Amino acid sequence: MTRAIVLFAHGARDARWAAPFEAVAARVRAAAPDCAVALAFLERMAPTLDDAAVSLIAAGATRIDVVPLFLGTGGHLRRDLPRLVEALRGAHPEVDIRLHAAIGEYPRVVDAMAAAAVAAAGFSE
Amino acid sequence: MTRAIVLFAHGARDARWAAPFEAVAARVRAAAPDCAVALAFLERMAPTLDDAAVSLIAAGATRIDVVPLFLGTGGHLRRDLPRLVEALRGAHPEVDIRLHAAIGEYPRVVDAMAAAAVAAAGFSE
Repeated sequence: MTRAIVLFAHGARDARWAAPFEAVAARVRAAAPDCAVALAFLERMAPTLDDAAVSLIAAGATRIDVVPLFLGTGGHLRRDLPRLVEALRGAHPEVDIRLHAAIGEYPRVVDAMAAAAVAAAGFSE
Repeated sequence: MTRAIVLFAHGARDARWAAPFEAVAARVRAAAPDCAVALAFLERMAPTLDDAAVSLIAAGATRIDVVPLFLGTGGHLRRDLPRLVEALRGAHPEVDIRLHAAIGEYPRVVDAMAAAAVAAAGFSE
């Protein structure tokens, strides 16, 4: 099995918006060095999820874990992303494509956001 | 000085979207028990930043730290939020209103997102 992770983010007009997402991708690469790691975007930035997945599959990926770098789970994650993933599965039935929860739903991310907010406001933790 | 923190998020149509933000607010309240903590939203959810700030000021807040619960820094944080904060400062010159960086720019949040993504995909950290 050849593994890949796609970190799926919203996208924005301003290229600087992507900086934290690129930083997350770099840390994931460091933590999973045998795994291909790609960013993909819902809109306004490239590549799309489809383009990213096609590249990873062409490079040999047989399992792709899609992790949404979204804080909340709204329409984009309840409707848009599942449709994109279903279309990918239909086009690439030989590839195991797994869709995970929004990163903001993980307790360690909630804890880190709270700790960062408290520290930013100048309170000791 | 009477302190308050406003956690400012985007907002969405789906009420379930707000769950991680409410969880962050609860943790911030626990970490800074002498500080009033409120959520506020750019759109689609209540209260607005202005409504939240007016309530906090009416309750005695003399310093408000605004922490954006956004991952990337795009147009909402580069243009919309500074304008909202400037309007608040103009309307309440006696209150010290401080605007902080997007929560996604803090290294501990980047690290937590990367660790959560790696764990979600089934890699050991």
